[in-house]
Amino acid sequence: MSSPLEEVCAEVLKRVTPSGSERKQVLSLATRLVEKVREEAKEKRVEAEVRVEGSVAKNTWLRDCPEIDVFMRVSTSMPREAFGTVCLEIAKEAAEGYRQIERFAEHPYLEAVTDDNVWVNIVPCYRVKPGEWISATDRTPFHTDYVKPLLDEQKGGEVRLLKRFMKGVGVYGAEIKVGGFSGYLCELLVLNYGSFTKVLKAAADWKERTVIDYEGHYERLDDAKKLFEEPFVMVDPVDKRRNVAAAVRKERLDEFIAASRAFLKAPDLKFFYPPQTEALEPTELVNKINARGSAIVFISFEACPAVPDVLWGQLYKSQRALRKLIRQHDFTVLRDTVWSNEKNLNTFIFEVKNRFLPNMKSHRGPPLRKKEECEKFLRKHVGAESTVSGPRIEEGRWVVDVQRSHTDVVELLKEKLGDGGASVGLAEVVSKAVADSLEVMVNDEALKLYSASPEFAKFLTEYLEGKPRWLT
Amino acid sequence: MSSPLEEVCAEVLKRVTPSGSERKQVLSLATRLVEKVREEAKEKRVEAEVRVEGSVAKNTWLRDCPEIDVFMRVSTSMPREAFGTVCLEIAKEAAEGYRQIERFAEHPYLEAVTDDNVWVNIVPCYRVKPGEWISATDRTPFHTDYVKPLLDEQKGGEVRLLKRFMKGVGVYGAEIKVGGFSGYLCELLVLNYGSFTKVLKAAADWKERTVIDYEGHYERLDDAKKLFEEPFVMVDPVDKRRNVAAAVRKERLDEFIAASRAFLKAPDLKFFYPPQTEALEPTELVNKINARGSAIVFISFEACPAVPDVLWGQLYKSQRALRKLIRQHDFTVLRDTVWSNEKNLNTFIFEVKNRFLPNMKSHRGPPLRKKEECEKFLRKHVGAESTVSGPRIEEGRWVVDVQRSHTDVVELLKEKLGDGGASVGLAEVVSKAVADSLEVMVNDEALKLYSASPEFAKFLTEYLEGKPRWLT
Repeated sequence: MSSPLEEVCAEVLKRVTPSGSERKQVLSLATRLVEKVREEAKEKRVEAEVRVEGSVAKNTWLRDCPEIDVFMRVSTSMPREAFGTVCLEIAKEAAEGYRQIERFAEHPYLEAVTDDNVWVNIVPCYRVKPGEWISATDRTPFHTDYVKPLLDEQKGGEVRLLKRFMKGVGVYGAEIKVGGFSGYLCELLVLNYGSFTKVLKAAADWKERTVIDYEGHYERLDDAKKLFEEPFVMVDPVDKRRNVAAAVRKERLDEFIAASRAFLKAPDLKFFYPPQTEALEPTELVNKINARGSAIVFISFEACPAVPDVLWGQLYKSQRALRKLIRQHDFTVLRDTVWSNEKNLNTFIFEVKNRFLPNMKSHRGPPLRKKEECEKFLRKHVGAESTVSGPRIEEGRWVVDVQRSHTDVVELLKEKLGDGGASVGLAEVVSKAVADSLEVMVNDEALKLYSASPEFAKFLTEYLEGKPRWLT
Repeated sequence: MSSPLEEVCAEVLKRVTPSGSERKQVLSLATRLVEKVREEAKEKRVEAEVRVEGSVAKNTWLRDCPEIDVFMRVSTSMPREAFGTVCLEIAKEAAEGYRQIERFAEHPYLEAVTDDNVWVNIVPCYRVKPGEWISATDRTPFHTDYVKPLLDEQKGGEVRLLKRFMKGVGVYGAEIKVGGFSGYLCELLVLNYGSFTKVLKAAADWKERTVIDYEGHYERLDDAKKLFEEPFVMVDPVDKRRNVAAAVRKERLDEFIAASRAFLKAPDLKFFYPPQTEALEPTELVNKINARGSAIVFISFEACPAVPDVLWGQLYKSQRALRKLIRQHDFTVLRDTVWSNEKNLNTFIFEVKNRFLPNMKSHRGPPLRKKEECEKFLRKHVGAESTVSGPRIEEGRWVVDVQRSHTDVVELLKEKLGDGGASVGLAEVVSKAVADSLEVMVNDEALKLYSASPEFAKFLTEYLEGKPRWLT
């Protein structure tokens, strides 16, 4: 008899493993693409080694979302600019007939979608010796070559389980938006621990700053610990100076740990396939917001043209700047987040304890024993225009109540962001969009946004719920 | 030519030094009282050594407020209860014809006021050898004997200046209400530093935990420092184990230091004789309160029968308990104080940042690495009635937003104090009075109190001003 855990895993494995015919279809599409890229490269007189990389090459893709990575390895004599010119042209010709999107991470590449909804990436990189990396993607073929011989069909299945689990609990993907675990990292975790379940069991007990050095590049793990600063470290088997988990943010790591514990305790399909969130009815939403008694502030703006990694980098940076601004003005931020449809709608959400603050605030002066600083403090504040009351002595220090510059968080934001907020630290692209289309709303004023975007409605519903979807 | 400082001191000295005829009057009254007490003691067959002590004996009293202390030293064979029976009767008979008030500090004594408004204390104590103290006042005759030969007319003048200065800046008096400097402490300070001005110059530079050992009882000052815990230490010349400054609270010490600096910088009569505060007009008061934008909460109650030292001890204790209660419920206390006319009106004042808080509050759970505590936390909060949102992970910990029990500070206080508030730590006598006559008011609702008591009106005006009266 199998355990509940085994049953759940067996069911998921069935769902995520492509059938024989599906495999053939994906692989033949991949082969065709490689051929096309080769031909186009020849035509353009670019000497390129063209290969399939990633999950398709390693047989670890998820059945419902195959993504074919075709890499063209070019000579190091080629200038970097060529990635965005001739290489991109080759890719475009090769993917003719598909919907195409130009992208760039560290450098330009092409994303395309076939009529069968298969995603394709055509990516240039340099053909280099290990350790002589030039562009960020130069390591990828080495990753493929490293992992492929180590993963048999069974281990590939374990990787598929882990990927699906991570997708389900929201920690999959190294892109800036998520800050989670890459596919390659999932593969290495399975290699290191042996199976999906063993990865979860280990993760449930991960301590602060776990370091894994699967290839044993370092004599002592402490050396690797000192070298890397990130919260989780997986030394890259093909490059001892690189942390495969560099993109993993502390929040995602913590969520993965918590989800692993919860799943092991009560295995359930919902971890892999969370139920869709039903957006609250508008009246329910208003009730829920009002019941909190706090002030939820929505800072909304429109188009913000940038590729996702750049957009989310700028959004997160701007979110930190806004949080700092609000806190500097003494409002208590309870929670904050940011949402974007990556097209024309973006919203920062800040929940603050009280929308309004008293007109005055206490300003702590120097301790009494600092005689000269005290004199300066008194000269400045006694009878000054800005002084509401005091100065008085409190716990060994001079203290004065001074007029507060901003007592309404909404007014504060409107004032500081009216011109785009570059001076308070909003990132460039965000700042431009904010200058053009800022709107600041509080509590039920957000109904407008809510009704305009079902995606946002779902997001806000989940945000108010405020817990991982697997936690019930 | 004399300096401004010398001029001010000369003027004050003129005002505080009794004239020859005034001295004669006080001294002859003192002598008469001593005689009367002696006679009454003899009549009651109590063997007592009767003497004048305190400022009259030491020639350091302030012209406008002479206070005659007559001590009756009785045999140690007399039981302690006798202080409150036969000794008190002797005192009452001796002070016949004067307005009389029974008092007790550590033990009962009689306070009386003559028709010329001279205050008289008739106090019993034991005739003991130094070091064999039984009651708290047994040291007093030794203080007189110690100080008297060391103070000539000139030094007595310096003491008068210091006392008047301390009265003016509000730090004079060892009673609980003030927690300031006693007359004996003023005398020792002048002896130690040499003059009024020298005391102030020294005080301006006092560091944390100043220790003075005028008689050199301790070989090293550090020994005395270790022995005493109070913020300021003056080793009693007649008892090396007693700190004459034990009653001096940190706030009063700090205020004295700050006032000393300010006076030395800009000598002025106002330090000795501060201008009377003019209570604000009611409309001005309301404007001033509203302009703060905070919530000033008045917790008022009526008669609270106890002698001043007991009353103030209970009021301060209750104030601390209320502060703790309010803070425990997450309201931010900006400032607080307590006022009493020592008869039938008492008011705690708490200024809080916001009267209302959100309906929910964040409750921080265990850090993720504590696996079992996390499980317990989740079992308790996931889907619980009290959970508003979450649990979620924040900075490595589980956090949940829970329903707040009290969102209105006024309601909180009414609820917790309705029965007298003994359970939240209000002191006994206060608690009884609160149970009978509690009223909680916010902001301009205090107008009622304000109009009812000119004393309170002055107090509140000064409190809103919120700075030492000498600071202009």
